[in-house]
Amino acid sequence: MQPIGIIHTPFTTLEDMPIQPKGARETQGTIEINKQYTEGLADLAGFSHIYLLYQFHKAKRTALQVIPFMDTENRGVYATRSPLRPNHIGLSIVRLISVEENIITVAGIDVLSGTPLFDIKPYIAAFDGIKESRSGWMQASMEEVAKKRSDQRFVG
Amino acid sequence: MQPIGIIHTPFTTLEDMPIQPKGARETQGTIEINKQYTEGLADLAGFSHIYLLYQFHKAKRTALQVIPFMDTENRGVYATRSPLRPNHIGLSIVRLISVEENIITVAGIDVLSGTPLFDIKPYIAAFDGIKESRSGWMQASMEEVAKKRSDQRFVG
Repeated sequence: MQPIGIIHTPFTTLEDMPIQPKGARETQGTIEINKQYTEGLADLAGFSHIYLLYQFHKAKRTALQVIPFMDTENRGVYATRSPLRPNHIGLSIVRLISVEENIITVAGIDVLSGTPLFDIKPYIAAFDGIKESRSGWMQASMEEVAKKRSDQRFVG
Repeated sequence: MQPIGIIHTPFTTLEDMPIQPKGARETQGTIEINKQYTEGLADLAGFSHIYLLYQFHKAKRTALQVIPFMDTENRGVYATRSPLRPNHIGLSIVRLISVEENIITVAGIDVLSGTPLFDIKPYIAAFDGIKESRSGWMQASMEEVAKKRSDQRFVG
């Protein structure tokens, strides 16, 4: 597994970073794809949303139980989106603004600048749309999520 | 990046496998998580849907342009869900049925039996819900996706 590019965002520190794309709706970022992969970006611009799979590169340790940002109790790490999972892979759905050569501009980006990118997948409603779901411990509203900001709890 | 477990499904060959969870709505599978990670599964059972991040272990090569199952033209691999992407990571959203010790039972599973699992993340509507989206070249209906079956095009 080798990075295919780097994500550039306004967030240079975890302090005060939105914890999810919903909290960074208007925040724009650019993704610089290594030039040898540019051909693989053809047709991507037709999609309004894309998944980014990236490395939580500041998470150096693993914890099987964590207190998530939106909770006050320990939860199994696989029931959270915490970076401290055994494989430090992050997943965000962002809004696609443009694709020009090897540069992708997106909005609603919630990752640290300098984050290594592993993969991009198109969000396809016919594959991925979930009409009804239940979110266990995570009972916060979209507004509460949007307001919440990160801290240092998952670093190092 | 080390597998954290193995996905067991009824699909032992790519021929006639559904191409997406929507085509395998009632298909059940089990995920056997390595026992050292069992503690990380706490609280997962409260979620109705989970993301699986797994290895496309039968894809041995990379192609930057592919003809997707639901299309007849070459597309950039990052505008598709094809296994031939440079990092062979797959993403599926499946329905969670139960979690017992280190065994997770799911429905709507569209991967080969024996697939190595990298990560599980809860689907959280407040994070991941997309109300309106545009899917570029992918104009097939959910019914067409559900009927479509895999073939050998992305193997080896």
